[in-house]
Amino acid sequence: MSGNHARIGWIGTGIMGNSMAGHLLRAGHPVVVHSRTRAKAQHLLDAGATWAAHAAEAAAGADIVCTNVGLPHEVEDVYFGANGVLASLRAGQILIDFSTSPPSLARRIAEAARAKGAWALDAPVSGGDVGARNAALAIMVGGPAEAFERAKPIFEKLGKTIVLEGEAGAGQRTKIVNQVLVAGNTLSMCESVYFATKAGLDPEKVLAAVGGGAAASWSVSVLAPRVLKGDFDPGFFVEHMVKDLRIAKAEAAELGLSLPIIELCLAQYERLVAAGHGRRGTQGLFLLYREAHG
Amino acid sequence: MSGNHARIGWIGTGIMGNSMAGHLLRAGHPVVVHSRTRAKAQHLLDAGATWAAHAAEAAAGADIVCTNVGLPHEVEDVYFGANGVLASLRAGQILIDFSTSPPSLARRIAEAARAKGAWALDAPVSGGDVGARNAALAIMVGGPAEAFERAKPIFEKLGKTIVLEGEAGAGQRTKIVNQVLVAGNTLSMCESVYFATKAGLDPEKVLAAVGGGAAASWSVSVLAPRVLKGDFDPGFFVEHMVKDLRIAKAEAAELGLSLPIIELCLAQYERLVAAGHGRRGTQGLFLLYREAHG
Repeated sequence: MSGNHARIGWIGTGIMGNSMAGHLLRAGHPVVVHSRTRAKAQHLLDAGATWAAHAAEAAAGADIVCTNVGLPHEVEDVYFGANGVLASLRAGQILIDFSTSPPSLARRIAEAARAKGAWALDAPVSGGDVGARNAALAIMVGGPAEAFERAKPIFEKLGKTIVLEGEAGAGQRTKIVNQVLVAGNTLSMCESVYFATKAGLDPEKVLAAVGGGAAASWSVSVLAPRVLKGDFDPGFFVEHMVKDLRIAKAEAAELGLSLPIIELCLAQYERLVAAGHGRRGTQGLFLLYREAHG
Repeated sequence: MSGNHARIGWIGTGIMGNSMAGHLLRAGHPVVVHSRTRAKAQHLLDAGATWAAHAAEAAAGADIVCTNVGLPHEVEDVYFGANGVLASLRAGQILIDFSTSPPSLARRIAEAARAKGAWALDAPVSGGDVGARNAALAIMVGGPAEAFERAKPIFEKLGKTIVLEGEAGAGQRTKIVNQVLVAGNTLSMCESVYFATKAGLDPEKVLAAVGGGAAASWSVSVLAPRVLKGDFDPGFFVEHMVKDLRIAKAEAAELGLSLPIIELCLAQYERLVAAGHGRRGTQGLFLLYREAHG
């Protein structure tokens, strides 16, 4: 690996992946990119990235292979599929999965990498499109300390809060904690704002009184004003929250835990998808209250 | 009323009431005090307050009558009881109830006051013992704007965030919003920290990664560190939260709303009381998880 100019293979060019790979390109890294839809990589190709026909090809010549895709089965396919990352894996390569996916999948990838003398890090992120664009993500990492140290210059070009949480899967488990907090706080916010409106209060005045004290949260300070404006556009998609809470529920079950906030939030977000709001932002939970009660 | 030196009748000298009445005494207000247990008023008496044998006597000579007691039936008794505030009420007096109690009770007090040419304000507070001690409370006020303006110099000696939310009961309804947010955020925090410990993570590292982003809340930044230290001492009592959430549930029912966060939080806090933890702090919800699962 050539220090600050490690060769990057980048797979997955959604909103997050596009911003993140762009930072690495601008920092001088050679980037070979692959994504399901080539058009979504065009911006990176215009900026100097090289196209690869599949994940194995994007990974083949890289020092560090980065993936950021959607659903768990897509992560699985990108790694374990016929033309997946593991097909071209060489000793000494570092694999970084920025996707949010099950801890057990992160451990399987790590084992497959270790078997070939390579390293894998699970590194889900928090901070959304804005955090990705501003290189201000929080990055929660699981995997070997040595690989973490080697990959740190990459993480530092993408995020501001970078924490090694433990062995393989620990990044994903930390992301679960993050999502359960976000979901629980957002549900509490939507319910409270809804109560306020039905109780004849002026929600702006209510938030002025309660938003700075023990009731304070990011959901109150950032998402509640959107609810009050009737803005249910996605900062983070409802359907992605459903995916993440399903991972959380499965992981809790694997640990033998029954966790009521996870259960309640998942049920409410699933109802929201069923009502046709899967592509809204997570603050769309407010609509569930309004559609139930008027 | 003599401007900055309005005569104060103060009823209720718990942790909050003691600090708050102390601020008014130090600001030069004559204070006549009554509480159920005289010993709890001793600190104020030593500082120059005058003792009254009952609420009516404390209120009789006051320009502004302040009450800060515990349960709804105690608020009711302090106002409507044989020697209650309303027994000695005169035209022009302003009644301020700082207790957290049902909006319907606030409206009844307001009507009784209006019938005698007096004013009543419901003014529940947030900020706990520390906020009371530092005169940094958030004060959520319901009642007539004229009375609010007259009482403002008093509020400004006790709090930093002072908002008139609407007519009688609007302060109490705003406090419900506050408590639902606090309870929901705190339950989410306790469940998440518990998940983190059972998942083999280091909760301090987890909070380092997630505490500053979309998962941020007062519960995470202030209460989670106490949980990690095994500190379940009360900043705010579990049994008081149960009282407040019962008020919230009743109010939601009165508005025809079924609100799942209120239901879940109340159920969990009631279980915590049943398990003998009523006098712990609200972060004690963590114990419920631990006692259920180990």
